[in-house]
Amino acid sequence: MSLPIFLMSDLGEGSIYVAAMRAVALTLSPKSAVYDITHSIPPHDIAYAALVLEDVVPYLPPCVLVVVVDPGVGGERAVITAKSGEVVAIAPDNGVLTPLLTDATVFRVENESLMLCPISPTFHGRDIMAPVAARIAAGLNIEEVGPKHKPTMLVLPEPDVSDNLVKGRVVHVDTFGNLVTNIKKVHLEEAGIGAEVSVRVSGRQIGRRVRTYSDARKGTLVWLWGSFGRLEVAVVEGSAAERLKATRGSTVEVCGS
Amino acid sequence: MSLPIFLMSDLGEGSIYVAAMRAVALTLSPKSAVYDITHSIPPHDIAYAALVLEDVVPYLPPCVLVVVVDPGVGGERAVITAKSGEVVAIAPDNGVLTPLLTDATVFRVENESLMLCPISPTFHGRDIMAPVAARIAAGLNIEEVGPKHKPTMLVLPEPDVSDNLVKGRVVHVDTFGNLVTNIKKVHLEEAGIGAEVSVRVSGRQIGRRVRTYSDARKGTLVWLWGSFGRLEVAVVEGSAAERLKATRGSTVEVCGS
Amino acid sequence: MSLPIFLMSDLGEGSIYVAAMRAVALTLSPKSAVYDITHSIPPHDIAYAALVLEDVVPYLPPCVLVVVVDPGVGGERAVITAKSGEVVAIAPDNGVLTPLLTDATVFRVENESLMLCPISPTFHGRDIMAPVAARIAAGLNIEEVGPKHKPTMLVLPEPDVSDNLVKGRVVHVDTFGNLVTNIKKVHLEEAGIGAEVSVRVSGRQIGRRVRTYSDARKGTLVWLWGSFGRLEVAVVEGSAAERLKATRGSTVEVCGS
Repeated sequence: MSLPIFLMSDLGEGSIYVAAMRAVALTLSPKSAVYDITHSIPPHDIAYAALVLEDVVPYLPPCVLVVVVDPGVGGERAVITAKSGEVVAIAPDNGVLTPLLTDATVFRVENESLMLCPISPTFHGRDIMAPVAARIAAGLNIEEVGPKHKPTMLVLPEPDVSDNLVKGRVVHVDTFGNLVTNIKKVHLEEAGIGAEVSVRVSGRQIGRRVRTYSDARKGTLVWLWGSFGRLEVAVVEGSAAERLKATRGSTVEVCGS
Repeated sequence: MSLPIFLMSDLGEGSIYVAAMRAVALTLSPKSAVYDITHSIPPHDIAYAALVLEDVVPYLPPCVLVVVVDPGVGGERAVITAKSGEVVAIAPDNGVLTPLLTDATVFRVENESLMLCPISPTFHGRDIMAPVAARIAAGLNIEEVGPKHKPTMLVLPEPDVSDNLVKGRVVHVDTFGNLVTNIKKVHLEEAGIGAEVSVRVSGRQIGRRVRTYSDARKGTLVWLWGSFGRLEVAVVEGSAAERLKATRGSTVEVCGS
Repeated sequence: MSLPIFLMSDLGEGSIYVAAMRAVALTLSPKSAVYDITHSIPPHDIAYAALVLEDVVPYLPPCVLVVVVDPGVGGERAVITAKSGEVVAIAPDNGVLTPLLTDATVFRVENESLMLCPISPTFHGRDIMAPVAARIAAGLNIEEVGPKHKPTMLVLPEPDVSDNLVKGRVVHVDTFGNLVTNIKKVHLEEAGIGAEVSVRVSGRQIGRRVRTYSDARKGTLVWLWGSFGRLEVAVVEGSAAERLKATRGSTVEVCGS
């Protein structure tokens, strides 16, 4: 049984570049199923992609994961692969895999016999990453791809934590207009903030904390701990992004009160 | 052989929430294939999702179908599952499954041993519906999920039918700008409308009926019986939505003449 | 082992029309996997779809490929199927398969026992193409679909080649704003253009040629040979479409200098 292959990129939903990667993966590992995580990463946004991986990878089955957010394609940066739990990831060595690489052994992909030929200098997703992923999915030992490698690690955008104050940011606006932040419970603990909490977005106070959206009336501005452990600001059956004119990057402050 | 799993939601194409559901389903039923119906249901639009199910479910193979349009997540509403023909559906008990529940035995999902742990109060799609669907796809008997349940049924937006007049609405604007309505042939029969028919959208007369788009010249405004049995207004090789400045919800009137 | 089925159309990402096709294909070939190429072909744009096929088909595994770009649905045009290498394609006979039909034997799909019943005059993708594709994927011999057929061939939009000058067009703007053209190396050879090359988009000179995007500084306007062999104009880590106010159809001129 071959492993399933998951694809993630900034190439856009419905991209024919993704179609080519999917086709290559299935050609070289015909017994794999190929699935998408998302192709809606903002173009070249390595940090955003790393945050998505932090949230989604814990739910993946044993698989091979290909991440193509690759502004440096064809240049000096390496292509790497590493095993994190039951997930073998393959991506450019630009920090995008940071959340997966703690304690992982990383290999640099250099074995050209595993790649397509010729290799386009502008699309390693199709010509290097998809074919190598497919061969691993079909049973290739990860150590065959090349030598061990010390990967580039990214400093992910963590909130500023000080005494009784956490300053974070909106990292994602979802389809409902909910504002998802980079603030987690651990940051409030680090700041010594207890049960009484005040949340502000772009300086505006958010009324109350709820357990879930339906705990307040339609139209109420609330905050809650979202399903991936992130502080989230929402309008019940409405859009917090519209109400607060907030976008990705907007400041979110939490203090004890 | 495990059943395939189909996902449908208002979470958006390329949503990482959907990616997490897909990952959970494949983790718990590795021999299932997971497919999407659509994730472009307008946010929280239960009635719209029910209409889509009415049109699409008759074409599905034997499968497990997960429908996540769930404004009441984490509140009082139950999660239910029911078998309709060869399709086992699982969804919040908010009426979204209405077209599938005539004559179906419905069960309330309560068996926590089938769910993820912990359960986020804001994302039952990932923590309850996807895992229970996966276990059913892998062979679990639907009666194991919990007790029988009397489901919430929705009154779907039917057209008003009176003597010689049917008043309906545009329920969907497709990618070509075609206006798909909630009017079917049966409504015309109920109104006693015969072969001579006059169709108006937002008060404007639609020229003629065709069998298919290519039966009239480019640019002609026509109406026809669409591929799901719904009255449809189109501009040949153009956009009826633009021409008529019509949107979802616009009034469509049919009378005999 | 059934063949995988690939779907491509102008029906839009997340389209419920596509969902119905996917459902029909899986019903009639339950052991096939069904994948998407793209559903973002501009509505009715046969020439665009043909260009996508030219680029993507060489990467496909052995499969059945369904192409639904079908402005003439329900009219006089036939539905055809043909084997090109290891890919069996099925599509309306409107020229969309042109890049695959050189030397291929083409059959007209007429065997009604292979189709759904009834057949909607407005959606042959669901009622004819998906079911016939599924039966071929499950083992049906292509010759069973109907008689041999002389297909409609499209003249694809090739650049004008004259002495020392190639005049082409932007055929695709990708998610990064890169301008992908219909100009290939062979056209420069035909025009007798050597190593020294000057490229202009809408009359504006493009600075320099690079091997890959990262070969120049952020913000530089460059041109290169893209990953599908097409001349491409890009802004490093920016959008050439925005910078040059260029869109699909914009003129691109190449001359020797």
